[in-house]
Order: sequence, then C-alpha cells, then structure tokens
Amino acid sequence: MADIPKTMKAMVLYGKDDIRFVTDKPVPVPGPGEVLVKVKACGICGTDVKIITKGMPNMPPYGRFTQGHEWAGEVVALGETVDEFKIGDRVAIEAHKGCGRCSNCIDGHYTACLNYGRVDKGHRASGMTADGGFAEYAVHHINALYKIPDNVDFVQATYVTTLGCALWAFDVSGGYVAGDAALIVGPGPIGLSLVQTAKALGMETIILAGTREERLAIGRAAGATHTVNIKEEADALGKVMAITGGRGCERTFDAAGNSESFDLCMRAATRGHVMTLVSFYKQPVTASLDYAVLNSISIRTVRGEGGNNCKRALSLMAQGQIDTSRILTHTFPLEKFAEGYDTFVNRKDGAMKVVITM
Amino acid sequence: MADIPKTMKAMVLYGKDDIRFVTDKPVPVPGPGEVLVKVKACGICGTDVKIITKGMPNMPPYGRFTQGHEWAGEVVALGETVDEFKIGDRVAIEAHKGCGRCSNCIDGHYTACLNYGRVDKGHRASGMTADGGFAEYAVHHINALYKIPDNVDFVQATYVTTLGCALWAFDVSGGYVAGDAALIVGPGPIGLSLVQTAKALGMETIILAGTREERLAIGRAAGATHTVNIKEEADALGKVMAITGGRGCERTFDAAGNSESFDLCMRAATRGHVMTLVSFYKQPVTASLDYAVLNSISIRTVRGEGGNNCKRALSLMAQGQIDTSRILTHTFPLEKFAEGYDTFVNRKDGAMKVVITM
Amino acid sequence: MADIPKTMKAMVLYGKDDIRFVTDKPVPVPGPGEVLVKVKACGICGTDVKIITKGMPNMPPYGRFTQGHEWAGEVVALGETVDEFKIGDRVAIEAHKGCGRCSNCIDGHYTACLNYGRVDKGHRASGMTADGGFAEYAVHHINALYKIPDNVDFVQATYVTTLGCALWAFDVSGGYVAGDAALIVGPGPIGLSLVQTAKALGMETIILAGTREERLAIGRAAGATHTVNIKEEADALGKVMAITGGRGCERTFDAAGNSESFDLCMRAATRGHVMTLVSFYKQPVTASLDYAVLNSISIRTVRGEGGNNCKRALSLMAQGQIDTSRILTHTFPLEKFAEGYDTFVNRKDGAMKVVITM
Amino acid sequence: MADIPKTMKAMVLYGKDDIRFVTDKPVPVPGPGEVLVKVKACGICGTDVKIITKGMPNMPPYGRFTQGHEWAGEVVALGETVDEFKIGDRVAIEAHKGCGRCSNCIDGHYTACLNYGRVDKGHRASGMTADGGFAEYAVHHINALYKIPDNVDFVQATYVTTLGCALWAFDVSGGYVAGDAALIVGPGPIGLSLVQTAKALGMETIILAGTREERLAIGRAAGATHTVNIKEEADALGKVMAITGGRGCERTFDAAGNSESFDLCMRAATRGHVMTLVSFYKQPVTASLDYAVLNSISIRTVRGEGGNNCKRALSLMAQGQIDTSRILTHTFPLEKFAEGYDTFVNRKDGAMKVVITM
Repeated sequence: MADIPKTMKAMVLYGKDDIRFVTDKPVPVPGPGEVLVKVKACGICGTDVKIITKGMPNMPPYGRFTQGHEWAGEVVALGETVDEFKIGDRVAIEAHKGCGRCSNCIDGHYTACLNYGRVDKGHRASGMTADGGFAEYAVHHINALYKIPDNVDFVQATYVTTLGCALWAFDVSGGYVAGDAALIVGPGPIGLSLVQTAKALGMETIILAGTREERLAIGRAAGATHTVNIKEEADALGKVMAITGGRGCERTFDAAGNSESFDLCMRAATRGHVMTLVSFYKQPVTASLDYAVLNSISIRTVRGEGGNNCKRALSLMAQGQIDTSRILTHTFPLEKFAEGYDTFVNRKDGAMKVVITM
Repeated sequence: MADIPKTMKAMVLYGKDDIRFVTDKPVPVPGPGEVLVKVKACGICGTDVKIITKGMPNMPPYGRFTQGHEWAGEVVALGETVDEFKIGDRVAIEAHKGCGRCSNCIDGHYTACLNYGRVDKGHRASGMTADGGFAEYAVHHINALYKIPDNVDFVQATYVTTLGCALWAFDVSGGYVAGDAALIVGPGPIGLSLVQTAKALGMETIILAGTREERLAIGRAAGATHTVNIKEEADALGKVMAITGGRGCERTFDAAGNSESFDLCMRAATRGHVMTLVSFYKQPVTASLDYAVLNSISIRTVRGEGGNNCKRALSLMAQGQIDTSRILTHTFPLEKFAEGYDTFVNRKDGAMKVVITM
Repeated sequence: MADIPKTMKAMVLYGKDDIRFVTDKPVPVPGPGEVLVKVKACGICGTDVKIITKGMPNMPPYGRFTQGHEWAGEVVALGETVDEFKIGDRVAIEAHKGCGRCSNCIDGHYTACLNYGRVDKGHRASGMTADGGFAEYAVHHINALYKIPDNVDFVQATYVTTLGCALWAFDVSGGYVAGDAALIVGPGPIGLSLVQTAKALGMETIILAGTREERLAIGRAAGATHTVNIKEEADALGKVMAITGGRGCERTFDAAGNSESFDLCMRAATRGHVMTLVSFYKQPVTASLDYAVLNSISIRTVRGEGGNNCKRALSLMAQGQIDTSRILTHTFPLEKFAEGYDTFVNRKDGAMKVVITM
Repeated sequence: MADIPKTMKAMVLYGKDDIRFVTDKPVPVPGPGEVLVKVKACGICGTDVKIITKGMPNMPPYGRFTQGHEWAGEVVALGETVDEFKIGDRVAIEAHKGCGRCSNCIDGHYTACLNYGRVDKGHRASGMTADGGFAEYAVHHINALYKIPDNVDFVQATYVTTLGCALWAFDVSGGYVAGDAALIVGPGPIGLSLVQTAKALGMETIILAGTREERLAIGRAAGATHTVNIKEEADALGKVMAITGGRGCERTFDAAGNSESFDLCMRAATRGHVMTLVSFYKQPVTASLDYAVLNSISIRTVRGEGGNNCKRALSLMAQGQIDTSRILTHTFPLEKFAEGYDTFVNRKDGAMKVVITM
C-alpha cells in the first residue's frame, strides 16, 4: 500500500455551522471486515445540513468529525478477512451497517438496529456516527458496500442511498405492484426517486403531488403519469380520485411530512391498501385515524435504505431504468465544498442534489 | 318446513332511540347460498348503541329494521345450493359477508369490501345493512356461518365476533408471536379478548393498561401478566419499559382510541415492530409520527373479524383457551330487551357484555 | 338487444378427437353477475389439446361442449346486478372464477377453489367446465373479466391468461425481484412469458434454458440476458453458476416439467431462496430433496392465473413492456379452426401460439 | 477469573468411531462477542452419530475436535464488547451463528448462511464446525445464546434446539395456525416437538403418524388428538381425510424423510396450503409432483432452528406448554459418555433423547 498517504484532505466539523476544509487529516485504517476506499464522489443530503447546523447524537467529536454518507469510490486496501472485494473494485455505500448482534439485526431488520449509534457494538452510520465521505479516503464495512456496475459512474453511484430508500419504501409496503396506482406527495429527491421506482416496477398510474411546478415537471419527465399542484388545485384528493376512477391508489407515499400530506395519502389510498411514510415529521401530525381504521388502511414507515435495496438500486441504474441527471444537478470539487453547500441549501440555480467530487 | 311460522317476535327500530318489541314481523326466507336460523342468543354491541341513537348509512328503513350482529342459533331451512350445512346444525355468525366480486373480496380482504353496504351486489352486514339477530329467526349467507363445537353453548357462541376481531388483529399484525411481549391499552371486551388471544398464542408478557381497576383485575384473571393503571401511574410508558427490560413490546394494540392511548402504543412498541389500531377514534389524533418513522414502527388497522378468524375463535373456545364468563356477564330474554339494553349502556351491575336469549 | 341472434357459429366437441364446426348453437344468456360477450379472438392452449384428445373431469357433455379459455371480445349484454361493465366494453377473460364460498375463495385463493368444477356452487372454468370462447358469443362472470386497454387489440388480449400465469408465478414466489437473477427452464409460451415478466419487474440476470435453439433465440429477443442449450451444454448447472458468479438465482422456474428440469431449478436456486413449478409433470419426479432441505430452498407451485394477475398482465401489455408478436405467431378464422389446430399441434411454420378470430 | 482452570475434561473425536474421554483439553478463551460457559448439560443428537461414524465437512481436525451442539450452562467469562450477558447467567445455545456478512445473514436468514462452515468469516456451528459442549467449558457467540428462564433446568434447556427447530418449521410455513389441522409424520424427537408446538399454538386437530405404537402413545400424551399407525393402517391417507372431514390439513410436516412420508404429507395437505420438510432425506424421493401443482400445495424446508425461535422455545417451556420428560429420557455424566451414546444409538431402555451432564 505504498501509494496510500498518511494524511488527506477532508471536511471536518468543528462546531455548529463551522465546517472546515483541512489537508492533514489522518487517513483511516480499515479494521476486520472493512475496506479503505479512495473516495471519488459524495452527495450532500438534507441530513448533512441538520448535522452541520444542529449536531446529532452519537456523532464523533467536533474537531475530528468528517461527514458524508452518500459516497462512492475505489477500494485501495482490505481489512482482515475481506475477500468479498479486491483492490481496484469500484464501490458505492449504504450508510447504515447494523450491529449484527441485536435481535432486529439477527432477524434482518438492520435499519432498526437496537444498537443504533453504538460503534463499540458494531453499528456504523458512515458520516453520521463514524467518519464519512467528504474526504479523500474513508473506511466502511463490507456489509454496506456494493460493487458499481460498469456503466454507472461514481457521481451517479452516490445516488444509491436515495434510490435505495425509495426501493425500501416499496419493499416494506409490498413490492409487487405492477399495474397498480401510486400517489407520491412531495417532489424532492426522495419523491422523484419513488416516481422512478414506481415506473421501474411496472406501476400503471403514477401521480405526483407537490407545490412547485418546476419540480412537478421534472416528475413528469421522470415517469409520473399525472401531477397535482396542491397549491393550485382546490381539491387535490378529488383530483386523485378522478384520475383513478374513484378507486384511489393501492400505494401512497408521504414524502412531504406534514399533516396535510399525511391526510391526502391516507384518504387517497384504496380501501384495504397501504400508505407509507418516507419522510420525517418536524411537527406532530393531527389526523382522523378513524378513517384508516374504517377503511383498513395500514401505515408503514421507512428509515434508511434497508433490506439490501442498495443492490437493487444499482441494478436498476445499470439497466437504464433510472435517470439521475435531473436529480444530481450539480457537482463541486472538495475544495469548493462551501460553494456546493450554499448551492444546495439555498437551492441556487435549480439545485436538487449537489455532489462533491474528489 | 311445517314448523316454521309465518311471523315472529323481533325488535324493530322505528327511529332514533325508538326500538320496539313486535310479535308479527314476517319470518325471512333464505335466498340462494343462505340459511334460515332459529336464533338462540344475540349479543348487544357498542355499535348497536350507535345505531339505535344515531342510525347508520345503508341500514334498512326505520319501521322494518331488526338489529343484532352477534348471534347464534340452529339451522332450520336451507336456501338453494346449500349443502355446507344441514337442518339442525348449531351455527354462529360473522357479521360481515363480502360482495365476492370487488377486487378486495377476490383477493380475500372482504372486511375491506369495496361494495360495503351494497346489498344488491351481495355484501351483507347482518344487523347493520340487513336484518339481524334480535328476533326469533334470521337469515345469513353460508360464507359467514360457522358450526359451533359441541362444548360451546349458544350464549358463548355470540362471543365469536368479538374474539374473531381480536384474532384478526393478531392476524394482520403477524400472528406468530409465541414468547413475545404485548401491550394492550383499553380493557373493554375487545381489550380483554386481545389478552386472552395473546395468552392462547403463547405470548410471554401480556401487559394490560387502563383506567378502571376492576377491569384490570378481570384482565389479570384472564391472562394479563401485568397491568398498568394509567390513572394512577404517572409514567405508564416507563412502567411498560421497566416490565420489558427496556425492550418494549413486539406488538401493541390500541383498544382505547384516543391520542394518549395511541402515543403509548407507539412508544411502547419495540423498535422495528408493530402497533395495531383495534378501536375507532371519535376525535382526530395528534401524534408525533416522527417517532414511528425514526423507529420503524408500522401501524396496522382492524375493522371487523376478517380472514376466517371466527373459525379460529370457535376453535380456541372449544379448546378451553378462552373464558367467556367474565366478559358475557348478563343475559336477558328478548322480551326484556329494554332492560338488557339499559344494563349494558349504563354498565349496571358490573355489566361488560349483555346477551339477549330467545 | 335486438341485434343478438338466437343461434351462432361455434366449435362443439362431440367426442374424443371429434371437434366440429356448427352454425346453430344457441347463443347463451348471461345470468346474475355475468355478461354476454361477442367473442373476437380465442387462443388455442395445450390444455385444449388434452381436452380434445382425452376429455377432462367436469366438462359439459359431448355434443354440447364448446371449449376455449383464452378469449377476448366486446360486451353486448349485461346480466342482473352488473354495473361494473357496460355495453361496448372491450374485455379479456381469466379462465377461472372461484365459487366464492369455500374457505380458499374467502381467503383469496380462488385458483385453489375447493369447489373446482362445481358449477352449481358458482365455480367456472370457461372453456373447461363451462362453454368457452371458440364461438361467436360467450358468457362469463364479471369476477373474471378485465377491461382491455385501448392500445391492446383483441388478439393480443387473448395472451392475458398466459402472461397472468407467469405473473402469478412471481406473485406466489415473492414478486419483489428487481436486481435479482432468474433461471427459467422451458422456452414455451409460459417460459417466454416468465422471461418477459422478469424483465418487466427489473430483474438483472435472466437465464433461459431449453433444448431448441430457435426458441432460445426468441427468448434472447424477448429479454433473456443469457441462454443455455441443455442439449449442447454438458454442464448446464455449471453454466448457470458461472453466469451468476457462483451465487445461483434468487428465483428459478420450472416450465418444462420433468426430473431433469426440476433438479436444475433446485440446484441453481441461491441457498435460502425459491424455486417455482409452473408446469404440469406427466411423470413422477425423482429428486434429491435432501439438497432442498440442506439449502433452505422452498418450492412454490402455480396453477392458473390467480390473484388478479390478469389485471397486471394487461397493464404491462398496455405499458409496452410485453411483446406478444413472437408468441402469438398465427391467427385463423373460426371456420378454419381445424387448420389452426393442426398448425398448433404440429408446430407447423414455427407456430408457438395460434389464435382463432371471429 | 481465578477459578477457571487451564485444562478440562472433554470428549475428543480422534477418528471415525473413535471418541475418547480426555482430562487435559485446554479450556477455550472467549473472543470478541463471545462468552465462556461452564457447561452443565449437553444432548446427544442424531447428527452427532453421523459425525462420529462418518465425519462432516469443515469440522475441526481429528484429535482436537469436541462435539456437542445442544448444550446449556453458566456464563463464567465475557469476551470483549459483551454486555448482553453477565457472569452467572444461565444460558442455552442455538447451534448456528451466521457469518453476519453474507446477503442471507444480512436479510435475516442465517440458517442459510452463504458462508456456512467458514469460521474465518464468522460462521459458527457449535459442536460441528467449532468445538462444542461435550466438555466442562465451551465458548459461543452471544448471537446464539439465550437466557434460561428460572423454572427451566439445564437438562431441559438442552431441548431448546430441537424445539426451536419445530418452531422454525411453523415459522417458515406461516405460524398463525390457531384452529387449524396438522399432520405430522415421524414420531421422533422432532415430530413430538412439532406435536407439542402445534398444541401450544392453538391447533385444533393434531394427527401424528408413524410406525411404532409406543411412540404414538407418547404423541397422544404430548397433545396429538389422533394417531395413525402407518404399519397397521392400510389407507393412512384415507384415515387422515376421514378425521378432517375430507378437508385435509392446513399444515403437514414430514419428519420421517422418505418417499412414502413425503407422498402422505403432500396428499394430506388441504388444497392451497403448505407441507414442510423437517427431515433429511437419505435417498432420492420419487413423487407425483403434478399433484402439488394441480392442488397449489407449496413446500417449505427447514434446516436448523432459525429466526430467533430458540427464544420462543424457551418461553413456551417456561410457560409450561412443553413437557420434556417424555423426550429427554436419560442422563449420563460426561465420564459415562460411552454408555449414554450406546443407550441413544441402540434405543436401549426406550431411550428417545440422552443428555450428558457435567
């Protein structure tokens, strides 16, 4: 490993709203089951903004912590016992690696790991509870690494966690949906990923609802068969019902995260079917849950990109089913992280997702 | 059928709060796939109170409508094509019979029938959208009839819908729960049925929470391993967590139907597991759904007693796993319906469920 | 209904290998829940050959029986209670309609109806236990009727049962397979439908195995990423393992129906995953089931096109995901049934499936 | 850890049929995530006989290998990172611990671990691919350790793997079976565990079939509602059908492992339901699989005691639902292993299972 330097360029969080570009961060060393990756690209996510502005529980200490949980790169060193990957492999990551020893992980539900944040017990959330990808090098456990197909580039591969999250939402809500109808509320990166996933899985009617017309237009280009502008449409639910002949949608997805979007998703679901929450809710939700009971609507929730769905995500990308160009709108080199961050946070120049390249 | 009279005694709803005992109601005639039953017992349910005081959509007209959806009796005549039952069979009913032709019924989800209330399409809700069991005779479709085991009497058999509902709640939330922990909030007939079902399915820890000590005592006798008096216990959630060693319950059931019970069920559920709503909600619920998303809690809902669970209910009763004596507290003959109704509505004499006998 | 004649042209089975074209068969009358359809096209299936040459249990009597279970046409009259369809609707059928009253039908498993063949109980298998579509007119129950999308023609729509069967095979074996690998053995109409379905559901590696090179070539054109000629390849299993990097296939499908194809499907399945039998087996199978036990391979079976999968089939066709042109190779008018039958049975002129038009 | 000796008594396998009692085997040291257990009891299993007489792949070398995979004892030392257990805890084991890094383990299917036998990758099969419990001390990973309830003793606790296997069989075949019927073929330890599990889960009809009357009698005492002596009964299938009113059994379990038992389980399964293979098959099976296809019978397979079912097993034992006295018929001290082994292998004195105590 003669060509791996001892120190590297990286972004380091020194305090609230104080993220700095450094050039002398020690290059990490892979432990058993881990690999060292030369990072090539790392996306900025809304969660990064939360961490920068507010911090998060279990994160490494200020002055040492490097964020970034949507990254891809090339394997340059292998930890003990690793033969699943070899030097030179192009890999993308899943942020979360379960502890592997709690009852949820043993049962396969590692995104609900009971030892979340416990690095000592084996849990990792790259860029959140351990150092991540806004750096020249990063380590990660092989459980959360995926080989990138040849026709997917590194920038595209950073999309795997976002798309994996959308796929996980289909997985938990019953993923056999060919010919069915979906309502997706909230045309952000997750919502647009849900649209593309719905299309890739053969759904017939894909309704995207939101408030910004330019985002809805992207949704139509990405596969939405119908869009509903909630701001302009007095009766959004009525519109969805009209589109579906009064039947509603077998699957609805709340990717907006408020009482109105929840209510729309609940009432637009076909009696006896499923709504899925794919968003955090900043405020408590007030909802007429009697409607869900009376109509046998069940409610699933999604956090992260579980169930090996990152593998599925990369495959759909390699098959040409997913167009990342409308979602990964901007790239900036690591040295210009500040500019990239500003572009993302303030949605400058129509920015949807911003990727940092190394 | 020489011994079947033309007219019969029955309760008839004439208007709001105007239910009358009549002696000349025509005995119904079974259609194709239906049987005529000499009713022996019929339970009064909270829904009956709602119908008597407020009416309900799709019910037969005032002046003709006979309620009662928890009934049992003896088969006295067979409609066309029926060979599944024979004269003399002792039968209990499930209230709901799906239309058999909407996509939900075809898929087996008949309690979410898309033609609910459409008698012309084949849907039946005995005692709700069609005449029911507060009468000497009643008809019902064989899809919703179950043979009563020899060691279960008619009064006990009226419990099949309540118990079937509890079983359906386990069914929709993953019914393989041996060794797991449950929290049940709301010690009414449904809650106590959930307790007994949890025990019959091999659950290890069964926590019943409520506000009335005498109901909690019944719960302990029925199988609850722990009870929590929400009124007296300042930190009910903390108590549940202490009982479960901080792990929470793999299944929680809200049988109380308010924001507080919802919140308790959500937070007491083990990360990655399931809460089930087995109650109607009179008011909108305000809930921090972010907690459900962050902890991968899914929410199932139950209406009615679907999935052939009435068969399972009768079997558990025949196996001696279910004690109805603490739940079916009172019986009154049809002529004394008014007294029975008063006893039920006003919970006189410790009444939990009141059964009318014929 | 002035324009509906009293008699019609039809094929009638008079005895073994004695099927005749008649011109005076009475036009059927739709019962409650049924519609009368002016048939436009009806496919010939391998099962038809069996019936013609050997008969089948529960079929209508010789001299009256009209076969044909893959048909499509236009609604010309409605039976009682039908408002799901209207005159002029273009419809395709699913052959099977469950009785709607046995425990399997109530649970949604109508292809495993416990009253199979019992017309009196409500079961129908169009063209098998009741008159079917080799005629100018036919009746069928609305439970087994599907509206044809505008961009699908009548001949294409006869494919819905074949494709629905392939979709049902994915449904019963866990239909969420995006990014996974499949092995399909047997490149007949079912096998080629499985290939197209696998592709439509986002599978990455789709291996088709068979003995006839021209069929394998059709498979490659239809979406197979790899083909294995079992006749030429000494080690077919080794080939599948090489293609999948030693991992095997998450789903394998036996559409050939013999001991060799069963064994290949069992051993090519990824440890812990699923093989599905989508074929009848003329002979007993001898298999080393110890392998399935040791490797946690489960085995699912498919008969018919259950679970509303005909709806999904039509939707995928309308979405342009399915190419019927390579499968529906020939059409003949009803008058030339004998020629069409001969073409199909003897695979003349590269015939795969032959459709009779009216 | 002053009181832990350096060497211990143990059984060591020196070659085929050459198992020796030694007194100077080094006491093992627990690694990260492991604990050291003072073994109190260890059952002899049929697999032990296979290993002693034939060896098995991936086992430790002759001269060093200590078998025993059904053991229980007391924790005496903790490896790094372990806080799930503490010194003095009474624990039982599950034999298998998945690697935690293959796709099956990540998905929760650790009994189908793709790295089975790869100790370097983290897989362990105690007493099979690593040293086990026929010794005074043994180490095991916490993923496969369960606390023993107070009212279960060490000898009883060795039953957890056998019972866990029966529970896993219900788990993989749909564990919600209250009120249903089961056929269990093969009244050995697994079959009798299936009987007790069926009863604990609320099944109504539990039919045990086998050839030895004394075993069937044990089955009746353990909860079988009916027994069928295959040797004496000319038409075993007819008998099962008669018991179930012609309906068959919703679940059938082959715990005998031959063509006859397979056929009986297949044909006795209710149309549309499930048969489960809970046995190895020494010989290839010849079966009319056409029957399974025509009747929509699916086939599940079970190896080991996956899905955390050992936890459920211990809970049912603590609840008094399981009687081990008829199954764990004999105990011998470690010094008398040879005598215990002889008793087990030759079924002396009515031996069913023999437990070695330390």
